[in-house]
Amino acid sequence: MVGMTSTSAAAPRSPGRPRSSRADEAIVEAVLDLLAEGGAVDSLSIEAIAARAGVGKATIYRRWAGKKELLRDALRTLKGAPPAPAGDSVRDDLVILLRGVGRHYDPRAVKIMPCLVSEVNRSPEQRRIFEEMSEPRRRVMREVLERGIATGELRPDLDVEVTLLLLTGPMLMRQLLGRLPERDPDELAGQLVDAVLAGLRPR
Amino acid sequence: MVGMTSTSAAAPRSPGRPRSSRADEAIVEAVLDLLAEGGAVDSLSIEAIAARAGVGKATIYRRWAGKKELLRDALRTLKGAPPAPAGDSVRDDLVILLRGVGRHYDPRAVKIMPCLVSEVNRSPEQRRIFEEMSEPRRRVMREVLERGIATGELRPDLDVEVTLLLLTGPMLMRQLLGRLPERDPDELAGQLVDAVLAGLRPR
Repeated sequence: MVGMTSTSAAAPRSPGRPRSSRADEAIVEAVLDLLAEGGAVDSLSIEAIAARAGVGKATIYRRWAGKKELLRDALRTLKGAPPAPAGDSVRDDLVILLRGVGRHYDPRAVKIMPCLVSEVNRSPEQRRIFEEMSEPRRRVMREVLERGIATGELRPDLDVEVTLLLLTGPMLMRQLLGRLPERDPDELAGQLVDAVLAGLRPR
Repeated sequence: MVGMTSTSAAAPRSPGRPRSSRADEAIVEAVLDLLAEGGAVDSLSIEAIAARAGVGKATIYRRWAGKKELLRDALRTLKGAPPAPAGDSVRDDLVILLRGVGRHYDPRAVKIMPCLVSEVNRSPEQRRIFEEMSEPRRRVMREVLERGIATGELRPDLDVEVTLLLLTGPMLMRQLLGRLPERDPDELAGQLVDAVLAGLRPR
């Protein structure tokens, strides 16, 4: 549950008070609950997190160096591993990847992510957390585009970074602004990929 | 300054206390300042607005029915009129329109708009305000696309609503997430339009 961190036996422990992974989970859950209830990332306090998790502040500080590290771990648990494209056709792989844009397994993410996005331009720390969350997915999509250029499925002069923005922007805006609510998001992902592949000009 | 409202002579006045357009401006400015300083739309109070504008609450209520109406007028002043496309080529018109996406004349808008976006999914009222602000621009872009289909510059089977999302999503994401900061946004608008028109597949 706690993503990139672990309570492995190699980690130093305070004798007599072993780290509790139950407490770790409760702390991470408290952070996500407080954020989902509308708490701004900046105003979240260790006191409030400890109270919500039913632990002492010392328990949090034994496990995380500070709020920054705790937030990063908590937000990481919202996103699972990036989807693995099948590798058969670039079109199908892009559809799979677009279906995952803005999709989260934790229902609290729907409330938390737009707020985090709105803070990205205010705080370098929020930007770093957001980039750490999105970069693994961006890397997979970049690889699919580069493969498509190599196989000739895509134009050789394609601008990969512009194409990333072109493909992910509409899906993120759909979710952030609730555009085209009547369309099934999975179908929309296919429509967007096909429109971008074919282009708007008649052939 | 106050957008769709006016202090025309036809409006009823309280005798002896004429409406002051200076006060109106101060009130609107107070709303925008408070929002730009990080105040959430929901937590903004008429008391705080009155204090900031240096007027009494009664002055606000003489002019606006409530907070909702005042907010709507204040937010409207952030956006000027939608850009008028030249009408020569669909490509050039789309570039002009994309250059305007997420562009505001008021520097406070850069701070206010991401927050408003993040509240669109929480509040039907915020959504209505946001839609009222964006719909005039969407309408102009829709007309350009429909003209392109009619002239044959665009595919006859184009899905206009998907294309709107396809064109505006990347520009909005660029601004919200600060993507491709090294690229000039005006050039990027042209690159995005050309990429979407040509399509990603080799011709």
